[in-house]
Amino acid sequence: MSLIVQKFGGTSVGSVERIEAVADKIAGYRDQGHSVVAVVSAMSGETNRLIGLAHDIQDHPTPREMDVLVSTGEQVTTALLSMALNKRGYTAKSYNGSQVRILTDDTHTKARIKSIDGDRIRKDIEAGTVVVVAGFQGVDEAGNITTLGRGGSDTTAVALAAALKADECQIYTDVDGVYTTDPRVVENAQRLDTITFEEMLEMASLGSKVLQIRSVEFAGKYQVPLRVLSSFVDGPGTLITLESDTNMEAPVISGIAFQRDEAKISIMGIPDRPGVASQVLGPISDANIEVDVIVQNVAADNTNDLTFTVHRNDLQDAAAILNQVAEKLGAREIVTDDQICKVSLVGVGMRSHAGIASKMFAALAELSINIQLITTSEIKISVVVDEKYMELAVRGLHSAFGLDGEPESVE
Amino acid sequence: MSLIVQKFGGTSVGSVERIEAVADKIAGYRDQGHSVVAVVSAMSGETNRLIGLAHDIQDHPTPREMDVLVSTGEQVTTALLSMALNKRGYTAKSYNGSQVRILTDDTHTKARIKSIDGDRIRKDIEAGTVVVVAGFQGVDEAGNITTLGRGGSDTTAVALAAALKADECQIYTDVDGVYTTDPRVVENAQRLDTITFEEMLEMASLGSKVLQIRSVEFAGKYQVPLRVLSSFVDGPGTLITLESDTNMEAPVISGIAFQRDEAKISIMGIPDRPGVASQVLGPISDANIEVDVIVQNVAADNTNDLTFTVHRNDLQDAAAILNQVAEKLGAREIVTDDQICKVSLVGVGMRSHAGIASKMFAALAELSINIQLITTSEIKISVVVDEKYMELAVRGLHSAFGLDGEPESVE
Repeated sequence: MSLIVQKFGGTSVGSVERIEAVADKIAGYRDQGHSVVAVVSAMSGETNRLIGLAHDIQDHPTPREMDVLVSTGEQVTTALLSMALNKRGYTAKSYNGSQVRILTDDTHTKARIKSIDGDRIRKDIEAGTVVVVAGFQGVDEAGNITTLGRGGSDTTAVALAAALKADECQIYTDVDGVYTTDPRVVENAQRLDTITFEEMLEMASLGSKVLQIRSVEFAGKYQVPLRVLSSFVDGPGTLITLESDTNMEAPVISGIAFQRDEAKISIMGIPDRPGVASQVLGPISDANIEVDVIVQNVAADNTNDLTFTVHRNDLQDAAAILNQVAEKLGAREIVTDDQICKVSLVGVGMRSHAGIASKMFAALAELSINIQLITTSEIKISVVVDEKYMELAVRGLHSAFGLDGEPESVE
Repeated sequence: MSLIVQKFGGTSVGSVERIEAVADKIAGYRDQGHSVVAVVSAMSGETNRLIGLAHDIQDHPTPREMDVLVSTGEQVTTALLSMALNKRGYTAKSYNGSQVRILTDDTHTKARIKSIDGDRIRKDIEAGTVVVVAGFQGVDEAGNITTLGRGGSDTTAVALAAALKADECQIYTDVDGVYTTDPRVVENAQRLDTITFEEMLEMASLGSKVLQIRSVEFAGKYQVPLRVLSSFVDGPGTLITLESDTNMEAPVISGIAFQRDEAKISIMGIPDRPGVASQVLGPISDANIEVDVIVQNVAADNTNDLTFTVHRNDLQDAAAILNQVAEKLGAREIVTDDQICKVSLVGVGMRSHAGIASKMFAALAELSINIQLITTSEIKISVVVDEKYMELAVRGLHSAFGLDGEPESVE
């Protein structure tokens, strides 16, 4: 008999019918004797409806009021789910972020959780009540309503699980787990039974956006066992663990991640002296442009070539800034390319295995895919290649590293 | 420079455009140097939308969860109105019932206000901030969200005005004040500049439903000057005062109220002994049927005839109950009539003027309207007449008591 925190996202509670289905799922866990705390998002579409109202009034709505506005979305879902549970004969009680109380800092629209008071909820759980908590929201020291930013319901669930010392935090989504890569690109991609937090972080940030990255960090920090499951299909999902699979034969590579929509900018022939990298990237960061990969290499003539990638939408702005910087630094030229993509191998097994990188590069060479940039970390090797080779690269690596499963029969 | 509490109902904030108009109105008061606390309802239609969702799940939704659900409606409006004020360069802050804090008892869906903590709001007012409060809601001792029942936003406004010792509480509605009678029945009905609380109570309970009766009682009790105005048309509205108009020439009668949809039940020939009235009305009250007029008269044969009126929808239930009671008491018969209406003269001036009643009865006789029942109070005389004479009676009395104004020219 364990305590389970279950998080249901907007699609899972997108209609009265789906809320009823979630109630059935929770009821099933209660019938097995488990205690359940459910964390819910706003019904899908509701947050956008509310944001639309705000934008009808103000182009840049006051952040404090934005939080007051959008936090109502989750509150509505908590009430409806509690009613659905009550109808089924289960006692259930809804709480918003302020009632719990989920204390955050006062950074409206992207607040961070400081602490959670679990006492009130704990009493309900002990009394056999299903506790239904509004995700994504909290309250600051002064009692103002805050929100954690979009997707913050995952963070709420993990933080609650940590505060309540729950046995498992289950995140229900519209996919049935974490895959070796995107099944839309590689049809025989396989669901992973387990993945480590570190791997999950690399997978999430690289585009396998199953979970909000903050919630994964949080779960790792507080050692909350996290499981990703489907709201719509029964199954074990993927368990995100502290330790890599105990199976000695576990594959070295967990998955292949990729990122489209990137663009590459190179500033060529920068004089080789200290501080140039920050002189290049400082103005980019000041303009709130996020930079992904950064690669620098020393060229033969005592100048540097610095290359980095940004989101494709930011390319023009970044290039405009760099043209000014280049002139100031006396750099030779700026080269941009918006037809690139990033493909990454992720796996904790990589740490202890030499030769992964060379195997990766060889597999790509065999497919005649030219590698433009390479970066590596402890558990990840990323390459930037021409965008038109993305699917080819992902499929090739998926197969080369033995990740292909049996294609599922279509019924 | 006064402190004004302004309440805007669902129609007044029914769209983004109307919320903008409300912001303009508040801005006008701020520009004159007044401090403003705005109390808002849910955007019209929103409460019904939320109730609809609940009923899709449960026929009788859990009251606690119902309050969690519907209280989001007002919260949305507070955020949008605050944004609209911020856009205009006025500092504004929204608060829900729990944040204020408006402490109520724990009777979900029809809670009563116990106390209001005005400290937080007072600090904002002193800082020049427009405070925007969600009407209709509060929080109980245990921190559960409660609502005051439909129309409770008026009560919130009056209670806040009392707690803050506001100079005036303005209730914005879709009418521009309180009229001598319903302008839909008498076209030259006149707007009253002032009306006393007692008169307003009689007018409200008799069908001139401009204000929630609870809010009027509340305002009278705490001596909060209350003004009814239109959200859509500029004008002075009607001020509801403790004392009658100081004008010596003030009319004796303030207005003519009326009530359709009533039905009359008479129990004839009840033995004349103590306790019979309660034996008749007790079972009616036990069945939660509200009784309006009650008239008893001693008949010639030492039996009593007791007559009372109920809402027309309750007539069948009431008659069924009375048939059992009549048998037990040995009464002669039950007579019912659902084609009746009640017409009332209301005015504090009545107290000191003899002859009002006879003038009323004479005016009705001149129109050949038969009076079925008569009841009187300090400031009211009501008659029950055949429903088909209602408009005739109201117009006749309106004219007989000198309430007719000049018909307004249609432009």
